[in-house]
Amino acid sequence: MNRVYNFSAGPSMLPLEVLQKAASELVCYGESGMSVMEMSHRSPDYEAIINDAEAMLRKLMNIPDNYKVLFLQGGASTQFAAVPMNLIGRTGKADYVVSGQFSGKAFKEAQKLGYDVKCIATTKEDNFDHVPEVTKDMVRPDASYVHICFNNTIYGTKYGYIPETGDIPLVADMSSCIISEPVDVSRFGVIYAGAQKNMAPAGLTLVIVREDLLDYAEEKMPTMLEWKTMAENGSMYNTPPCYAIYMAKLVYEWILSIGGLDEMKIRNEKKAALLYDYLDNQDYYVAPVKKGSRSMMNVTFVTGDADLDKKFASEAAKAGLKNLKGHRSVGGMRASIYNAMPYAGIEALVAFMKKFAEENPKK
Amino acid sequence: MNRVYNFSAGPSMLPLEVLQKAASELVCYGESGMSVMEMSHRSPDYEAIINDAEAMLRKLMNIPDNYKVLFLQGGASTQFAAVPMNLIGRTGKADYVVSGQFSGKAFKEAQKLGYDVKCIATTKEDNFDHVPEVTKDMVRPDASYVHICFNNTIYGTKYGYIPETGDIPLVADMSSCIISEPVDVSRFGVIYAGAQKNMAPAGLTLVIVREDLLDYAEEKMPTMLEWKTMAENGSMYNTPPCYAIYMAKLVYEWILSIGGLDEMKIRNEKKAALLYDYLDNQDYYVAPVKKGSRSMMNVTFVTGDADLDKKFASEAAKAGLKNLKGHRSVGGMRASIYNAMPYAGIEALVAFMKKFAEENPKK
Repeated sequence: MNRVYNFSAGPSMLPLEVLQKAASELVCYGESGMSVMEMSHRSPDYEAIINDAEAMLRKLMNIPDNYKVLFLQGGASTQFAAVPMNLIGRTGKADYVVSGQFSGKAFKEAQKLGYDVKCIATTKEDNFDHVPEVTKDMVRPDASYVHICFNNTIYGTKYGYIPETGDIPLVADMSSCIISEPVDVSRFGVIYAGAQKNMAPAGLTLVIVREDLLDYAEEKMPTMLEWKTMAENGSMYNTPPCYAIYMAKLVYEWILSIGGLDEMKIRNEKKAALLYDYLDNQDYYVAPVKKGSRSMMNVTFVTGDADLDKKFASEAAKAGLKNLKGHRSVGGMRASIYNAMPYAGIEALVAFMKKFAEENPKK
Repeated sequence: MNRVYNFSAGPSMLPLEVLQKAASELVCYGESGMSVMEMSHRSPDYEAIINDAEAMLRKLMNIPDNYKVLFLQGGASTQFAAVPMNLIGRTGKADYVVSGQFSGKAFKEAQKLGYDVKCIATTKEDNFDHVPEVTKDMVRPDASYVHICFNNTIYGTKYGYIPETGDIPLVADMSSCIISEPVDVSRFGVIYAGAQKNMAPAGLTLVIVREDLLDYAEEKMPTMLEWKTMAENGSMYNTPPCYAIYMAKLVYEWILSIGGLDEMKIRNEKKAALLYDYLDNQDYYVAPVKKGSRSMMNVTFVTGDADLDKKFASEAAKAGLKNLKGHRSVGGMRASIYNAMPYAGIEALVAFMKKFAEENPKK
């Protein structure tokens, strides 16, 4: 086995211990005589798994009792439609902050569905090199909710604060920063996240929703997108993505075993600091994101020369540092350094960056 | 390792060879240096996997070139909404055949969404002990499509024929019989199936759709439910359920290795015959499904005494024959004997049934 450092933006690295445990019990789980993949989702063995997953996540994120935890399918992109369908019935309109590509897609999806939605702030004119300053007075007082994307995977930005929206529920796509550090769940009406970056393999979507927000669903919407129906059925209105939920449970267990989100944050800060400190103290690479908006999960940088960028990603891959190419829409490089990326991976990356800069002087 | 015979209706057994192969390469896939779970869905390694999966399925099912193969999420229940949203624009109305619980749910979902749908045939009055006779003259000439559920998991029935609907596209939920035997895909407009019975772990939904049917989608529908969008993006409009697709590929590979669907059918017929022949030649158990509608995948039977039924399922489980309890809505027993159930599993079941009948005489 020759594992690489995988800087993919998602799907992305999972903790080695988690993969090894999954492999060891893939054919036969405990005394069940079968794989987790083969279990009826309504069997006691599987119910223990999904219940443990929820209990562990609640402990990890300190989720208040008046929030439901849903294990769904379809990715954040499905929630781009589900969010307005479930919530806009409260007042008939909603506000969006556009801080990158995915928050833009969320906004467009709500528009496409015919809803009265407004973009109340964007940093598009600055090529999304920081997140907008969102203040309470920008929010329409009769908005059903305010939607943000908390961490912008493609641009490498993150809110350094939780926007204050008063009584208007704040809805956050946290796909690329979920469980990377503690967050005050009670400040949000809804948190949702695709699992494939920090939590589990692709195919699982997490929704954490405050109970009083379950009562505004459109009448004529697909039942499978109704949070209330899913909440009432314990995420088992139909067959859930059982194995991905099991993998998430193993990941939650791993984080709890190392000390929970406080320790996870310490580790993630240390990793990000190593990389950003290097970037701030040399002049070969440029980190385009403004300080204050820097993501701890996705670190973007460029050489300023598209050919060199290309060479960088290609030679890094040969050196066992995979998937450092930036998103196809922005170019440059991006190091996604989620929970499962070890510190040694960042050390190896910085060492490679130094070597590459020496060996490839700019003209 | 002490594997049981798992008669669960879904999720259900996977071939042991497939599970063993998955376990062996879970931590590190080939020369990639990572798990399939960790691969970017846009990486060459993963693209090879999803392309192979599609190519193998096309070969296995002999899917004509003018059909798209989509690997989606959300289960058949999501397709209950997606089917009318994608198709009813053709004429504005659609016909449904209700032959059990899931086809009933599909019909109700279309009604709930406000569409003009008609139930053109049902066997509800006979407690779904057979499937309806569907003939061309029953179909409204201006229906956008006719929807059927080809195999009814809960009741243990299956169409012994493909309904002739003329120019009206036939849409079939094949969740519990997909790839169990050859089927003439060209007779259908759309075939869809949750993967968790015969194909892969839960979390993957297969849609096979004739290309000319991609152009009728509602304008205001969730993008993630649009077949055309998914077809245009090779099932990668967003991150697909990568690992479940990989598992499906291993299952397709396994079926091809044993001789494809012709051989699969021979094996499945032999298994079902052993069980039905026993049922037909004793008088302790009753098989409620009418001959001609019997499912090869889900075999239902009762003792006629609810307490004995309960004892049967409980004692069978202790003997390593798991999940034989019938669906909670119908009671009795159900043996789901999908592709991965070995012949020895049916032999063990029949032996247990004989023993149970001897040891538990009826009053």
